[in-house]
Amino acid sequence: MPVVDLNCDLGEGFGDWRMGDDAAMLGIVSTVNVACGFHAGDPQIMADTFAAAKKAGVAIGAHTAYPDLQGFGRRPLPYSPREIERLVAYQLGAAMGVAALAGHRITHVKAHGSLGNRATEDVSAAEAIARATKSVDRGLVILAIAGTEIERAAERLGVKAIREIFADRAYTTKGNLVPRSQPGAVIHDAKLAAQRVLAMLKAGAIIADDGTKIPTGIDSICVHGDTPGAVAMAASVRQALSEAGYTVQAFAS
Amino acid sequence: MPVVDLNCDLGEGFGDWRMGDDAAMLGIVSTVNVACGFHAGDPQIMADTFAAAKKAGVAIGAHTAYPDLQGFGRRPLPYSPREIERLVAYQLGAAMGVAALAGHRITHVKAHGSLGNRATEDVSAAEAIARATKSVDRGLVILAIAGTEIERAAERLGVKAIREIFADRAYTTKGNLVPRSQPGAVIHDAKLAAQRVLAMLKAGAIIADDGTKIPTGIDSICVHGDTPGAVAMAASVRQALSEAGYTVQAFAS
Amino acid sequence: MPVVDLNCDLGEGFGDWRMGDDAAMLGIVSTVNVACGFHAGDPQIMADTFAAAKKAGVAIGAHTAYPDLQGFGRRPLPYSPREIERLVAYQLGAAMGVAALAGHRITHVKAHGSLGNRATEDVSAAEAIARATKSVDRGLVILAIAGTEIERAAERLGVKAIREIFADRAYTTKGNLVPRSQPGAVIHDAKLAAQRVLAMLKAGAIIADDGTKIPTGIDSICVHGDTPGAVAMAASVRQALSEAGYTVQAFAS
Amino acid sequence: MPVVDLNCDLGEGFGDWRMGDDAAMLGIVSTVNVACGFHAGDPQIMADTFAAAKKAGVAIGAHTAYPDLQGFGRRPLPYSPREIERLVAYQLGAAMGVAALAGHRITHVKAHGSLGNRATEDVSAAEAIARATKSVDRGLVILAIAGTEIERAAERLGVKAIREIFADRAYTTKGNLVPRSQPGAVIHDAKLAAQRVLAMLKAGAIIADDGTKIPTGIDSICVHGDTPGAVAMAASVRQALSEAGYTVQAFAS
Repeated sequence: MPVVDLNCDLGEGFGDWRMGDDAAMLGIVSTVNVACGFHAGDPQIMADTFAAAKKAGVAIGAHTAYPDLQGFGRRPLPYSPREIERLVAYQLGAAMGVAALAGHRITHVKAHGSLGNRATEDVSAAEAIARATKSVDRGLVILAIAGTEIERAAERLGVKAIREIFADRAYTTKGNLVPRSQPGAVIHDAKLAAQRVLAMLKAGAIIADDGTKIPTGIDSICVHGDTPGAVAMAASVRQALSEAGYTVQAFAS
Repeated sequence: MPVVDLNCDLGEGFGDWRMGDDAAMLGIVSTVNVACGFHAGDPQIMADTFAAAKKAGVAIGAHTAYPDLQGFGRRPLPYSPREIERLVAYQLGAAMGVAALAGHRITHVKAHGSLGNRATEDVSAAEAIARATKSVDRGLVILAIAGTEIERAAERLGVKAIREIFADRAYTTKGNLVPRSQPGAVIHDAKLAAQRVLAMLKAGAIIADDGTKIPTGIDSICVHGDTPGAVAMAASVRQALSEAGYTVQAFAS
Repeated sequence: MPVVDLNCDLGEGFGDWRMGDDAAMLGIVSTVNVACGFHAGDPQIMADTFAAAKKAGVAIGAHTAYPDLQGFGRRPLPYSPREIERLVAYQLGAAMGVAALAGHRITHVKAHGSLGNRATEDVSAAEAIARATKSVDRGLVILAIAGTEIERAAERLGVKAIREIFADRAYTTKGNLVPRSQPGAVIHDAKLAAQRVLAMLKAGAIIADDGTKIPTGIDSICVHGDTPGAVAMAASVRQALSEAGYTVQAFAS
Repeated sequence: MPVVDLNCDLGEGFGDWRMGDDAAMLGIVSTVNVACGFHAGDPQIMADTFAAAKKAGVAIGAHTAYPDLQGFGRRPLPYSPREIERLVAYQLGAAMGVAALAGHRITHVKAHGSLGNRATEDVSAAEAIARATKSVDRGLVILAIAGTEIERAAERLGVKAIREIFADRAYTTKGNLVPRSQPGAVIHDAKLAAQRVLAMLKAGAIIADDGTKIPTGIDSICVHGDTPGAVAMAASVRQALSEAGYTVQAFAS
């Protein structure tokens, strides 16, 4: 019986602010990427999120980002690879510390927002993330957008890469995400999203909007947790996976 | 030949700001307590500080604090023991992450400023710090002000406490620090400070300003790194220790 | 025809985070207290909020607070009256600057959260707020909880105080708010809240939970904007005021 | 007798951190640009700085910047012109509020660091700064690097531009600053800097490193306040101006 992971971002509040329906998402996904205080999150939210994930049997990762609460980590900031290494090591360590206190364990690192986008095509930035991950704990894996530089950087440095595809984003012929500014970039129909995910899993490939197939291993499906309809979309994808015979399970379990 | 540790705070800048002469202090002390980004410090400064300490053969610890850059961690903030646990676990983990990247290793936890003061007399806060330390890594020790609740909390929870005395602060008959607001609270004469340290080591006791002796083990001498005359004071204490036959050496080495 | 103001807090987001249904509240109240970047708010949210208030014909004030995004301004922070003066002058000036750009005009100052609570009973803190307000612009008024030190401080310094009562909070025999920790402190029934407001307006007094009347002028009714049911509660109070023959109108218009 | 202004940045600390010798600089210059809390400064430092400037008879301006304490406002951040308007209006208003409390008065706006650099060549950003300034107070002037877009934007919008040259920076043939990365970009010799200033004032032109003269009005000389030798450099320039018969005086007095 085939196995696949279903992941989303979580713990993206700060202080009294919240984003998304974390409790609902924990009932659907198998892995969550938890904000580490740089683009969102704080020690209290992190601890509560890790404890809730533990209780729900959901795996946790450090969702590392540029230090940018004001911009939610979505703005390009001029950090050098050397600085990125340190930002990632700091956040990853912090997440491991809080997870230990909360009785759970960090299994992976994912790069968020602008840092994550950069790591798909900037080799030095991608290697910085992989280097930091490896330095802090050799047993960790990197959750990487399938077919991008961060996947290759992880492999080059001997860090296992878990390859993810997006349930609700269209792909270009080259296998990149269609920019959000273009029509059709984001898929809002939960059923359609679920069908696309199944098609890509079956094909062992990313399927571009013109039908082109870019072969890749697919270990995880990424769903969003903070958009309108996020919970319904995630549930739809999960149900489709189950009905198609997939076991939804954290890659690290 | 008797051994004693000499410690000071380090890495207390933020962004472009600096505080104290870190390079000079690294040539004098055997252990440094490094700010973890909450009252001072950032991933870049932490990494540079850890690398410099490694090169100088100086042991490093996580100097944990309330999140309060504006107040340098010196303001009393209304965090509950449960929240303190999480703040400490976060900072300790972050420091361990950055230290791993920088090729060094965290040996201890110390509480800074207002959190540190609270932990000398608030049992719950002291235990929260010890609990966080133990949860994150059982091999770590706590650098504690000798004779206070944080020393006892550490011991109760099975975390080794390293007991420190202050070179430049007067003590009350009860073994507490004379508040800075009172005359004579801070000793500015480097020679006098060195003599007091030797007297306390010889007596195996804190010596209050009225001569009262409060017996205690003394594992480390704390000198300040950011006051005028800090470097001269630290050098004077170090020289006095050497001349009296002490080997100045990190407790954890 | 009697006139009364209806006010609530607004613009309490930060970066990508939002709190409450600002658009709905702008259709109900006559005055809003806008966060100035210290407990919530940022220049972008402030400008958007001021522009929306202008369009809705709603008066705006500077909702000044301790600098505490993490704690939403609700934590007691150890600022001296002299420091409070400066915090308030900074936020008030900032709000005036952004309001000028947005084509609107600040009419009043209100103290938020922990600073607001302190100003109800700490004479020095209350006077600091009044002093800052007066220094920055003598034409501004202070929106004060009726019967408290901030009302008296404003009057003493020659700043006009607008006296507000809370629609959804119970009062003690002394005219203070029943602490939220006690049962019945918060009124969740929108109808009941509206009735209480009318009763207090008619009596020209705060009516305590045991029926005691504490006479006071009442210039404004404060409703919450960020609680569940906030919009329904505010709408209910507004409708009751209209049906009872009150014109709901900003005090400063 | 010819008159010229001498300006430098001031109040560039944060919390317990300080940068530069503010007291010494206040004894030399006629105008200071005070950090407004976004790249440095906080309400307490601002109030102290404004009061000290008032006492020293030195004019004050709002030194507006991107919100970037971590990067001291020196990093390019992706703010749109519309967002810049709001950032500038916020900081300018805040400075005016604190200045009113401190008994002084803001006379001008200057853009700091990365925002300042951008405003020398990005017309939209320059106009955003001018628009914000004009919206907040039509009586204010903009302190502009002579010959750049910010000077032209101010004039176009009807805001008076005060044109400054740098005492310690070399200029290119086009009248731009030689980038710091190139040799000779920064002049460290206080005597030489003073001579260059006099030569440019006499020529009524920026003099490039190859001798090219770019004619411009010169209203103010900018000296640095936070570099090694800053005080000596400023004093040297001031003395040279006096000996050459210039009255050093704030443009706005």
